[in-house]
Amino acid sequence: MEKIPVGILGATGAVGQRFVSLLENHPWFEVAEVFASERSSGKSFGEACTWRLPGAPPARVADFKVKGLEERPTSGLLFSGLDAQVAGETEERLARGGHAVVSNARNHRMDEDVPLLIPEVNPDHLELVAGQKARRGGGYIVTNPNCSVVGLALALAPLDRRFALQSVVVVTLQALSGAGYPGVASLDVADNVVPFVGGGEEGKIEAEPRKILGTLSGSRVTPAPFSVDASVHRVAVSDGHTMAARVTLAKRPSPAEAQEALAAFAGEPQERRLPSAPVRPIHVLGEDRPQPRLDRDREGGMAVSVGRVRGDERGLWLEILVHNTIRGAAEPPS
Amino acid sequence: MEKIPVGILGATGAVGQRFVSLLENHPWFEVAEVFASERSSGKSFGEACTWRLPGAPPARVADFKVKGLEERPTSGLLFSGLDAQVAGETEERLARGGHAVVSNARNHRMDEDVPLLIPEVNPDHLELVAGQKARRGGGYIVTNPNCSVVGLALALAPLDRRFALQSVVVVTLQALSGAGYPGVASLDVADNVVPFVGGGEEGKIEAEPRKILGTLSGSRVTPAPFSVDASVHRVAVSDGHTMAARVTLAKRPSPAEAQEALAAFAGEPQERRLPSAPVRPIHVLGEDRPQPRLDRDREGGMAVSVGRVRGDERGLWLEILVHNTIRGAAEPPS
Amino acid sequence: MEKIPVGILGATGAVGQRFVSLLENHPWFEVAEVFASERSSGKSFGEACTWRLPGAPPARVADFKVKGLEERPTSGLLFSGLDAQVAGETEERLARGGHAVVSNARNHRMDEDVPLLIPEVNPDHLELVAGQKARRGGGYIVTNPNCSVVGLALALAPLDRRFALQSVVVVTLQALSGAGYPGVASLDVADNVVPFVGGGEEGKIEAEPRKILGTLSGSRVTPAPFSVDASVHRVAVSDGHTMAARVTLAKRPSPAEAQEALAAFAGEPQERRLPSAPVRPIHVLGEDRPQPRLDRDREGGMAVSVGRVRGDERGLWLEILVHNTIRGAAEPPS
Amino acid sequence: MEKIPVGILGATGAVGQRFVSLLENHPWFEVAEVFASERSSGKSFGEACTWRLPGAPPARVADFKVKGLEERPTSGLLFSGLDAQVAGETEERLARGGHAVVSNARNHRMDEDVPLLIPEVNPDHLELVAGQKARRGGGYIVTNPNCSVVGLALALAPLDRRFALQSVVVVTLQALSGAGYPGVASLDVADNVVPFVGGGEEGKIEAEPRKILGTLSGSRVTPAPFSVDASVHRVAVSDGHTMAARVTLAKRPSPAEAQEALAAFAGEPQERRLPSAPVRPIHVLGEDRPQPRLDRDREGGMAVSVGRVRGDERGLWLEILVHNTIRGAAEPPS
Repeated sequence: MEKIPVGILGATGAVGQRFVSLLENHPWFEVAEVFASERSSGKSFGEACTWRLPGAPPARVADFKVKGLEERPTSGLLFSGLDAQVAGETEERLARGGHAVVSNARNHRMDEDVPLLIPEVNPDHLELVAGQKARRGGGYIVTNPNCSVVGLALALAPLDRRFALQSVVVVTLQALSGAGYPGVASLDVADNVVPFVGGGEEGKIEAEPRKILGTLSGSRVTPAPFSVDASVHRVAVSDGHTMAARVTLAKRPSPAEAQEALAAFAGEPQERRLPSAPVRPIHVLGEDRPQPRLDRDREGGMAVSVGRVRGDERGLWLEILVHNTIRGAAEPPS
Repeated sequence: MEKIPVGILGATGAVGQRFVSLLENHPWFEVAEVFASERSSGKSFGEACTWRLPGAPPARVADFKVKGLEERPTSGLLFSGLDAQVAGETEERLARGGHAVVSNARNHRMDEDVPLLIPEVNPDHLELVAGQKARRGGGYIVTNPNCSVVGLALALAPLDRRFALQSVVVVTLQALSGAGYPGVASLDVADNVVPFVGGGEEGKIEAEPRKILGTLSGSRVTPAPFSVDASVHRVAVSDGHTMAARVTLAKRPSPAEAQEALAAFAGEPQERRLPSAPVRPIHVLGEDRPQPRLDRDREGGMAVSVGRVRGDERGLWLEILVHNTIRGAAEPPS
Repeated sequence: MEKIPVGILGATGAVGQRFVSLLENHPWFEVAEVFASERSSGKSFGEACTWRLPGAPPARVADFKVKGLEERPTSGLLFSGLDAQVAGETEERLARGGHAVVSNARNHRMDEDVPLLIPEVNPDHLELVAGQKARRGGGYIVTNPNCSVVGLALALAPLDRRFALQSVVVVTLQALSGAGYPGVASLDVADNVVPFVGGGEEGKIEAEPRKILGTLSGSRVTPAPFSVDASVHRVAVSDGHTMAARVTLAKRPSPAEAQEALAAFAGEPQERRLPSAPVRPIHVLGEDRPQPRLDRDREGGMAVSVGRVRGDERGLWLEILVHNTIRGAAEPPS
Repeated sequence: MEKIPVGILGATGAVGQRFVSLLENHPWFEVAEVFASERSSGKSFGEACTWRLPGAPPARVADFKVKGLEERPTSGLLFSGLDAQVAGETEERLARGGHAVVSNARNHRMDEDVPLLIPEVNPDHLELVAGQKARRGGGYIVTNPNCSVVGLALALAPLDRRFALQSVVVVTLQALSGAGYPGVASLDVADNVVPFVGGGEEGKIEAEPRKILGTLSGSRVTPAPFSVDASVHRVAVSDGHTMAARVTLAKRPSPAEAQEALAAFAGEPQERRLPSAPVRPIHVLGEDRPQPRLDRDREGGMAVSVGRVRGDERGLWLEILVHNTIRGAAEPPS
């Protein structure tokens, strides 16, 4: 099978580097071109990019000449790790130019006709693409959620389906890589915790899960009826967002019933054995887990871990961990 | 004025060292004797104790010979930093021997006739001491709360009084010093967060605030009627417990009204200008505060900080910080 | 090819866990039995062991019943991650019982007839085994170096061969995993550095490289004539020992000549393409490298990185990084 | 006594904030005006400055209007925390305008007629000021050393005087605050060490001690004849630079003799009991000290700590700690 050529938008940034890394040796896709802002364009990728992942950039891509964002891509499929400042307009323009844009940026996530996709949870929302194609001459935008939300919504999905979610109070302990590079100043997290992330993080965590778990009705998604209230923190962890979620469910399941629902969860990517899909999207762990250093890389970072499930009639506690730059999008606040 | 001689129980441990340090140069009290387990007794304090606070132990106390816990104290007033394994029985015995025991240990906190004291909040609970004295031949026990609870209950008190607290969901990010020394293994918190503290920490956080904010009726305290649900974490911060609390209040105050109530709060220690009392027990801070490294030492570590007050009709978020070994008791889980 | 069954001594400890992890799916070896102290023996490995590596222990081994150290192994080949307190006597006894013992413990490293092996550097020292076999009825001990030394000696080897090493002054910044688990107390490294490691670490770093780079003459090794002076530190890094080495070489090479010698270095494991051998044992890096988080996992943790090579007539600086629990032995000080 | 009014140049930066903080309540000096770059000038200090020290800026100074660097100071004495980009020209201009400029910036440190001052070590170098005054119409510049050098040179001074220093090999583990704010990216030091600091740090550490310990002859300083070779690292410590120094001394003192010389050291600031001077400039500590978190604040951060003194005929090891933003200048590399 010939591989599908793809372009990376914002390739030199933290999200872009992760795209390049994850797509190297992918069975279906091959990075064919990389795009970045004016400062980088014209240089080789190796030169333009301060590689922040372990090891060195893939040799093949390192030699690519970085294209400017205004250049016309040759690839039909584009993965976007663009900053929110430029993502909105650039992605819109490229979609209108006939490209399929899969974006980590927040700009179009809440657009009525744009799917906010977690493949295990709401693949049916991809039907929205048909409307976009019609309006945009064949191109379209699909987004993935905020890097905390992808873990939260994945963990909430099986509980909502079986037990009818009513409310979520969630407190995050977010990793440094979520802010990109240079991102958070080291003095801000040395022997410290910052109860603030910027970029309207709490608002995203409160809105996105309701769209993801919402119901597709005609050409739009009706948000799910539960409430989400979020408080966010930055902690001195390199990768892996930890979340403590207090949930109430209409059917008042016991902790054991909740754990069973979480462990049994699977979706289309599992059925179809898609290349990057984890075998089990949710790993249910014990009393003092999940922990970022020990659990973030489960199934190559694509599985979400849920542990310390406890509670009573009043509600349940879940402790959720997601690798924010592999399963999640590292979306720098801006 | 001659100073009141006091003894320190468990003086070589993390809490005991803090007592020794805070009482050095105190205008009213003077450390007259130090007690520890068999392993230490007979040695000089300087020898017996691996001093974990900055600098060196006070020279005067370093020369004290450490007494065994079975020796009879000469001081009427004893501060206890004993481990929970020995605190229960030892404190009881000493109280029955006529001593006033002020304890950081958890053992007697929930005893019906023992005040669980935050001087700014419930000084009236000291009336319970009269009953103890009668039963115990003049001696008695007074306890202070768990190191998270002291900050939480202090921050909740003014809100409960003015706006009638209904429910609290609280997530803690607790400092390493809260586990004593050696306490938490460094590998457990290197590039990591642990969603577990041990020692029944959540249970204490759920029970103690209700006693502290409860009503004294005759010879016992009726717990306050609000609910508390807690989830705890250990993070790589040396000192200072951070808590994100989601509260509902019957009178639905605005964030500004809540801030005003918090900032205006003061109690008997402020009126009487007690030596260790902060001028303002609660410092109200802004959007990205409190932060442990920047705010834990406010008013010598005796003030609690509350920031990021936000919310709406459904409830309010508070971010609370307390210095866990100065204002709070460092009570190792055990 | 049938795999060679091996036993792991001290399998539940930090080094033992790493052995279990690295030998899983090894093309030549298969873990057949695990041994630990009395406290663990009789339990299943999964129960007995607090697994501190990411993920979970290999399922196959998790079900093994842990054997006591006094039980007779069925495997001819044993890998030892025993603590120094018991390693000396236990390994000696097993060698005398006819077993081949490959040990991470320090006890026998400086024994006259025991090879202190870095396969790339001194495979000829394995000739010492013949003498051991004769004396011990077929069994023998082979040791690997201290976890800092393995990186240091590997980096020094090509320089010594080409340019004749005269002196080394080396300062280490050692990772937490080098002390095993629970090892270093978190309070000792929170916002801190400790200029001390314990266990005679400096002495080992000063002695072992001279044996490794020494000359085999008959049935013993004459130590290499250069001097080593070491100062050690514990830093808040999970894995990866960093070392700053100042070296003088008789032939006064330029930094470029030194880099060339380092990059060109290879040994028998590379020629024979042994399964765990890195393609290039030494990766030469640039100005601000190596860095533990970015470089410790090069070639699965088996390659040593050397960077920031600078200097003049008076001497050269090298910055050396080794993964202390993969390439190196995590040998807890004791 | 009326206080001497002083101005702070670069007051909103990391060094400037420390000046403001240390001069609050100083018995001799009073901050009368604060200067910063265009971006800040015109605003109040409280607004212009993101205060990164614990607590809040002194209320009195917070209300000051920040002056631009081009405005003429009213104070004769100016403390400069300017960035190297602007310090060179600005300080020169102000000195020519008749002001006494005491600078943390590196620009003029090695100028022939500028004292590079550690008051305990080389107060005689202040004689250079006379020459400057003549040439500059009454104004002059005095500099203090690089933040590592101030600790290193202070520790070397008594050894050089008594035992004649020949060579120094020094490896630093430098704190985050040494890079200013935002300074080092948190991802660069999360679970990591960086063997690079930038700004020609090694060169400064190799040159400045030789000037400081040099001999004033006429109107210039002849550098001391010993060699210094340095290798630097950034580690995840908020404040406090740790240095491992290997020294050779002509008179080959024992470790005990060296410790005695260090502990006995005092200078003019001690004799004259100057307000900020530590009682003992060098604290001699034991086997596993100094440690930044425990020892950086000795004597308010003005004492340097030296421990782990060991060695033999070949040389001595010293472990040195200096509070880099109190005793030392936090001089961001640039």
